[in-house]
Amino acid sequence: MNYRDTFPALANKSYFNYGGQGPMPQSAIDAVAQAHIKIQQLGPFGNAVYPWLEKEMASARHAIASELNVSSDTITLTENVTVGCNIAMWGINWQPGDRLLLTDCEHHAIVAIAQAIALRFNIEVTTCPILHSQNPVETIFQHLQPNTRLVVVSHILWNNGQVLEVDKIAEICHQNQTKLLVDAAQSVGMMPLDLNQLGADFYAFTGHKWLCGAAGLGGLYVRPEAKPSLLPTFVGWRSVTTDTQGQPQDWHSDGRSYEIATSDFPLLLGLREALAYHNNWGNAEARYQQILKNSENLWQKLQSIPQIQSLLNSPPKSGLVSFQLANSQQGASGQLVKFLESQRIFTRTIAHPDCVRACVHYFTTESEIDELVAAIEQFSQAKYP
Amino acid sequence: MNYRDTFPALANKSYFNYGGQGPMPQSAIDAVAQAHIKIQQLGPFGNAVYPWLEKEMASARHAIASELNVSSDTITLTENVTVGCNIAMWGINWQPGDRLLLTDCEHHAIVAIAQAIALRFNIEVTTCPILHSQNPVETIFQHLQPNTRLVVVSHILWNNGQVLEVDKIAEICHQNQTKLLVDAAQSVGMMPLDLNQLGADFYAFTGHKWLCGAAGLGGLYVRPEAKPSLLPTFVGWRSVTTDTQGQPQDWHSDGRSYEIATSDFPLLLGLREALAYHNNWGNAEARYQQILKNSENLWQKLQSIPQIQSLLNSPPKSGLVSFQLANSQQGASGQLVKFLESQRIFTRTIAHPDCVRACVHYFTTESEIDELVAAIEQFSQAKYP
Repeated sequence: MNYRDTFPALANKSYFNYGGQGPMPQSAIDAVAQAHIKIQQLGPFGNAVYPWLEKEMASARHAIASELNVSSDTITLTENVTVGCNIAMWGINWQPGDRLLLTDCEHHAIVAIAQAIALRFNIEVTTCPILHSQNPVETIFQHLQPNTRLVVVSHILWNNGQVLEVDKIAEICHQNQTKLLVDAAQSVGMMPLDLNQLGADFYAFTGHKWLCGAAGLGGLYVRPEAKPSLLPTFVGWRSVTTDTQGQPQDWHSDGRSYEIATSDFPLLLGLREALAYHNNWGNAEARYQQILKNSENLWQKLQSIPQIQSLLNSPPKSGLVSFQLANSQQGASGQLVKFLESQRIFTRTIAHPDCVRACVHYFTTESEIDELVAAIEQFSQAKYP
Repeated sequence: MNYRDTFPALANKSYFNYGGQGPMPQSAIDAVAQAHIKIQQLGPFGNAVYPWLEKEMASARHAIASELNVSSDTITLTENVTVGCNIAMWGINWQPGDRLLLTDCEHHAIVAIAQAIALRFNIEVTTCPILHSQNPVETIFQHLQPNTRLVVVSHILWNNGQVLEVDKIAEICHQNQTKLLVDAAQSVGMMPLDLNQLGADFYAFTGHKWLCGAAGLGGLYVRPEAKPSLLPTFVGWRSVTTDTQGQPQDWHSDGRSYEIATSDFPLLLGLREALAYHNNWGNAEARYQQILKNSENLWQKLQSIPQIQSLLNSPPKSGLVSFQLANSQQGASGQLVKFLESQRIFTRTIAHPDCVRACVHYFTTESEIDELVAAIEQFSQAKYP
């Protein structure tokens, strides 16, 4: 079966926005709709529906944990990757004068969280420049200070697709008694992961990008060694055990301690179906190798367009291929993206550095890539001959 | 058309758990499913889908605001009522020694949040006893201290259905320079509301109980006068405006400043359909009057069962009717609820005070109430003759 038949979103377009939001396989869409109906049949509230929901939550948590090669109890289910980052960043017991270190390639959601925390706890936020660094690990190392309590980096930079050496960054952080939060928005669902080996303390991700689940469900991994010191911030009935009077007794000892309350539970079944779909195609390593083939193919073909300058000078080790229109006027990236979308080819702009980003998944076809390259060429020659 | 045909959940049961989760009208279920498909068709990510999503968000925000008689800019969309309570409770600029005042009738989610905040900011949490108070306003007044920064009360007590005089509580709080958060889990969708008149600073609610929307969408009202002092805690790209470099420029000046990131946007369309369904039946006042008729009917009929003791000694001014099995053994409430569910009649237990809660909506039928009462009578006579 052609993959376009299994992803309704791909029926009418060439799609390169997996880093923004992945299309859902039909089986995942159906699973969400069927779960809604099941909940209405069983409840929606009562003694029959709760055991079913708990089983489904446990099953989805297990499926997610398996993707990351960790145990279920390390996983907190969240609404999105940003909630996971909030949990980790707010959960540090900040003291005045403490330092928080970001890089200049973090998503502005991370910058906003840092600003909110700085406002509250009187801490210092430092940004270290890795965008043009030859050695990001060394750059981060140089910016660590004795009172740096937390470092936030992306596993894969969302602007240029560069993969950071998280294991080495974790090592230098831990030598400095510093915790490491990884924004895994672009890595989960794209590359094979073994979080025990990676060593990050907190690893925040979402189900709706490379995993192709529905928007509104993500997660946070907390390393068992880091759990005791990560305080709960936003909490609710899902965070606690209760006594016979229904009063909170203690925080859950596992990832549920950072969960809050009622969510859109059907999304759990959608994500599980999406995971099953991918694993049916091939394992995480096989999918990643295909993504690398596709991104190298796209990156190579872009080299042949004189007006196009790729952000990386070798094929990215990820599915994100970013490029600029050389010698172009301001706004050119946006014009190109709009032109492409008028041809039913979906890409996006990134503001910093100003560029166009095209993402390829393992199921991206060669003909899609050729179509994209031809359209970029057409636009470039017409606008910047 | 019979209402049972419009609510699939009601086709196979008698339902009294509106305070736990409301059934969705078919039109709301369909709207969610159709929105999923629309997002796949337009995107899921690109220049075509975002204007559509923004229009739908604005429209849902407006529909919610209209129910509360406030303007859209006072509304923060949240995942559930508890997230709204977290935003308000964590958003106070707590200083060591400050006091937070709860009542003994708050949901344990509120107690958990208070514990998490106390742990972080070294504040004192006090609980005032209103369950058996003849005058809850006076009881709260007596517990206010000069450094009480926030009071949290429920508009309708979730255990016994009592409606608190929020306007009077707001007045005594404001005279003390104290902010008031109202847990509106049981009031929104049940009674007509004019939040300007009510005077609460923060009013947290959910769409999935009395409003009959899907689980996973709620909101928080923040009184304009209280907005400047409520700090953002969990934040993300939805909280901020960005500059040309894509960096955060400022918090949004409206309710979006407390929103975070990607949500399950289709739920917005479901909630809007549910609201339209209710308003098509009658306005908020008409629906509330019908709820009061139904709860008085149930309350009266329960008086005729000798083994049953209602928690309130007059019909509740809400749709929540709670009662105990007099002279029963521990666990009797749970046994009754299980017996009722075996008869396809859905109620729930409450732990404090130990009781059974049956909720009636405006579309609850007399025959449902009669069926419930007959089953309670049957159980009581068999177990406690």
